[in-house]
Amino acid sequence: MPAAKSPDPARRSERSRRAILAAARELVSEVGYAKVSIEAIAARAGVGKQTIYRWWPSRGAVIFDSFLALSEGAEGMALPDTGDLAADLKLVMRATAAEFADPAFEAPIRALNAEIINDPELARQYHEKLAAPVDEAKRERLRSAQRAGQLPPDIDLDLFLEFLYGPFYQRWLTRGGPLTPEYADSLVDLTLRAFRA
Amino acid sequence: MPAAKSPDPARRSERSRRAILAAARELVSEVGYAKVSIEAIAARAGVGKQTIYRWWPSRGAVIFDSFLALSEGAEGMALPDTGDLAADLKLVMRATAAEFADPAFEAPIRALNAEIINDPELARQYHEKLAAPVDEAKRERLRSAQRAGQLPPDIDLDLFLEFLYGPFYQRWLTRGGPLTPEYADSLVDLTLRAFRA
Repeated sequence: MPAAKSPDPARRSERSRRAILAAARELVSEVGYAKVSIEAIAARAGVGKQTIYRWWPSRGAVIFDSFLALSEGAEGMALPDTGDLAADLKLVMRATAAEFADPAFEAPIRALNAEIINDPELARQYHEKLAAPVDEAKRERLRSAQRAGQLPPDIDLDLFLEFLYGPFYQRWLTRGGPLTPEYADSLVDLTLRAFRA
Repeated sequence: MPAAKSPDPARRSERSRRAILAAARELVSEVGYAKVSIEAIAARAGVGKQTIYRWWPSRGAVIFDSFLALSEGAEGMALPDTGDLAADLKLVMRATAAEFADPAFEAPIRALNAEIINDPELARQYHEKLAAPVDEAKRERLRSAQRAGQLPPDIDLDLFLEFLYGPFYQRWLTRGGPLTPEYADSLVDLTLRAFRA
């Protein structure tokens, strides 16, 4: 450890890093993924372009990391586990519905989804880096329910999650209807019915 | 009826109209919705720009109509009704999965979806003009099943369709997995289980 280094530069670096990622996310919401430039990110974050290039090799890399930061800490994250699977899943789905009612939260994710649809490589990165750790936390909650005898031991947990989230995703993306708490509850009830029978 | 007009001009018009719509769809698949110009559509269709402007007021209008043409005849369309709801829905979902495995079919719909996600007004038009007549045909098949006592009379038919198609839509759009015939069948089985219980 170099004795000359105070902790301040590290703290300043972390502040800059977070400012850059926040700026990238905000700009994607405002002007769309395709139109966000390194220059605009640097200006918004109050840093020089060279600071961005020191940490990220490309525009795409910094934008993708800005989304990744949204799920930071997802590794090791856990869903609530009170022993009541339906209640725990309803809590999660209602929270998700509330998050997606907030334009500041949903606009960058909407922009990312529009991009993923047209870009198979970005879709692959999305599944591997963004979705996978979150999905694993969800599967672990379902495994706990299986151990407690609340779900059959032989069901396909990924298919369970597709049923729970697919209708929500379609309704949200195509603006097919409101994401109400009652809607969130009905997704849980119907999915449990489909997989418990 | 003007006696001087032979049927030929009308046939020629209809040929031009179809060529224009096909060109618009092809170009959307090839270069993306945002980059398709009236000039390019005209060149591909072998007509003059003025021919396009005679029938459509704008670039957006001709592109949207090119998608609408895909579901032409959807009004009055009917799903198979052999009396076996599960078998009929599996036939439909397997056919849908097969269609989406064809890049020539799925690429323009993918481009349209990317556009819908970012454009609330286009989403509204999509629901009203493209999805509504097809959804009504699906609901009518479900009502027939209700009359035959194969589905409870009080279920939410739109929610039923969201469960049947939402997971498919999410898997397709995010390239989350293959759209196999077995997958199509499992969507039908699980949705029926959720709504019959």
